Amino acid sequence: MSSEKSNQPKLPTSAIDNLTNQGFKNWFEYPIKVYPHHTDYLGIVWHGSYLTWMEEARVECLRSIGVEYSDLVALGCDLPVLELSIRYHHSLELGQTALVKTRISEATGVEINWDYAIVSPNEQELYVTAQVVLVALDRERGKTMRQLPPDVKDVFARITSAVK
Amino acid sequence: MSSEKSNQPKLPTSAIDNLTNQGFKNWFEYPIKVYPHHTDYLGIVWHGSYLTWMEEARVECLRSIGVEYSDLVALGCDLPVLELSIRYHHSLELGQTALVKTRISEATGVEINWDYAIVSPNEQELYVTAQVVLVALDRERGKTMRQLPPDVKDVFARITSAVK
Amino acid sequence: MSSEKSNQPKLPTSAIDNLTNQGFKNWFEYPIKVYPHHTDYLGIVWHGSYLTWMEEARVECLRSIGVEYSDLVALGCDLPVLELSIRYHHSLELGQTALVKTRISEATGVEINWDYAIVSPNEQELYVTAQVVLVALDRERGKTMRQLPPDVKDVFARITSAVK
Amino acid sequence: MSSEKSNQPKLPTSAIDNLTNQGFKNWFEYPIKVYPHHTDYLGIVWHGSYLTWMEEARVECLRSIGVEYSDLVALGCDLPVLELSIRYHHSLELGQTALVKTRISEATGVEINWDYAIVSPNEQELYVTAQVVLVALDRERGKTMRQLPPDVKDVFARITSAVK
Repeated sequence: MSSEKSNQPKLPTSAIDNLTNQGFKNWFEYPIKVYPHHTDYLGIVWHGSYLTWMEEARVECLRSIGVEYSDLVALGCDLPVLELSIRYHHSLELGQTALVKTRISEATGVEINWDYAIVSPNEQELYVTAQVVLVALDRERGKTMRQLPPDVKDVFARITSAVK
Repeated sequence: MSSEKSNQPKLPTSAIDNLTNQGFKNWFEYPIKVYPHHTDYLGIVWHGSYLTWMEEARVECLRSIGVEYSDLVALGCDLPVLELSIRYHHSLELGQTALVKTRISEATGVEINWDYAIVSPNEQELYVTAQVVLVALDRERGKTMRQLPPDVKDVFARITSAVK
Repeated sequence: MSSEKSNQPKLPTSAIDNLTNQGFKNWFEYPIKVYPHHTDYLGIVWHGSYLTWMEEARVECLRSIGVEYSDLVALGCDLPVLELSIRYHHSLELGQTALVKTRISEATGVEINWDYAIVSPNEQELYVTAQVVLVALDRERGKTMRQLPPDVKDVFARITSAVK
Repeated sequence: MSSEKSNQPKLPTSAIDNLTNQGFKNWFEYPIKVYPHHTDYLGIVWHGSYLTWMEEARVECLRSIGVEYSDLVALGCDLPVLELSIRYHHSLELGQTALVKTRISEATGVEINWDYAIVSPNEQELYVTAQVVLVALDRERGKTMRQLPPDVKDVFARITSAVK
């Protein structure tokens, strides 16, 4: 990763740029529904509520490749969010359902990059695009891991292999 | 405390029943304001948002009698909510300000009972009444404390003395 | 409903009192899972997070009897929470799954009473019991409905018939 | 604004790049404190909680230049978030206090750009940097405003003049 690139977050819509040919092939899919507690006075989803759905989709995507998040935490390896960028294209309203599409776009060293697109069930309407960077944190030391402990390395190998 | 009483939560409005003579004399006061993230599609405060304000008022009330909540946590003593009852009288809207009035009504053994009333700044409008019971939990053992550790006992003595 | 009873919320555990013979026969069931955003510094579910799950279970339970919540809102009939009481028996931790069991215990006039129990998937562990009272509100007038409009009456008839 | 620039969000740390000479001169300051409901199982602030503080700081900053957010809403002009990018430098813990520093960096057409830095009370520790773009939305039409209505234009003139 060039230093320029590491300082410059990819724009949240870049997740969607290469989709014309392939659609969401190989993306993980997490269904959501808008309940009253997600909405604000505008009758639409409050902009921060999307972060709860993105977190849930992340946990379930990891699970689909054999990584139980709570096991990771039990090993002393946390994956806090280091950076997040999100663009709101269309709003979701009370009672609507949608799909959180996500994939790991990069998993190098101790960082994991995620792409997101939240779309209508028929994939014709785009609500949100986002990118999230997680970093492996050694909880004991309260610091970014320099080197992954063996157990966690194994987990990361699985995550990395999930990225084509 | 009779066993009947311990099984029967006081109704949330009872907090307000004895106010006719005294108003909120000796109640702690915590000012709040309604921001977009507190509201739901009805344009009013979502019913769960009041719990965040009641928690904040509790922490600040304890602080006002010399008990820093994070110190208590550092001592291994947590004060999770054991029971909560709340009644919604009138709704608060975006941009409105209000006062969370609270007091410790009872602190016996390892339980602390709190009364709440959320009122307009001039105290003429009543939005919410509530009662909350906290219990001292030994974090190490993950169990309710049977006997308070000396440091915490001292804290509780101060809390109890705050109740006339 | 006697006036004494109407002023005195049933204790949140009463929902569970008559269960010995019947279990949760005819209760609606809504599965949940604990994600990081539900937890607090204690590593367990923050006490207010349960209200989001109870709301979701309510919406899905209504849906199971043919009442789409967002349709009700579109008719100008809101169902805000009037009263809520909740007791925390055991805490739920990160990664755990559970079942929100709920049923309408009473639907008279313009109020709907709900019983709740949140239990482990095998129903052997009890995490939370609660009771919630909703009230039909005429959004235009911002007031409790005195008389139900025909469309809404039909909806309430369905709700009431759902209560044996 | 070049089309390249409009597609490329400024990186969230850019807010902090020009601070070496001036510090936070002319930035608006909003004090915050970490309560239990802000934290997650790691004992630190959950990454989404920062969005509530940033929203509150925005509303109060607008107020400081004479724009009451709820008045804007009453005029039919909403300011939803169009884009948000955030970087987490250090975590905030239970009981800590901090300052949300914010300023409007640009207000052209119907978009308002905000810079954020969340710092320790003595400004020596940096927790979060962020950028947020709001867009003026005509609520009636549910669309981005092309041309500002007179009342709102006046409000935006005040906002724009707040940007040196």
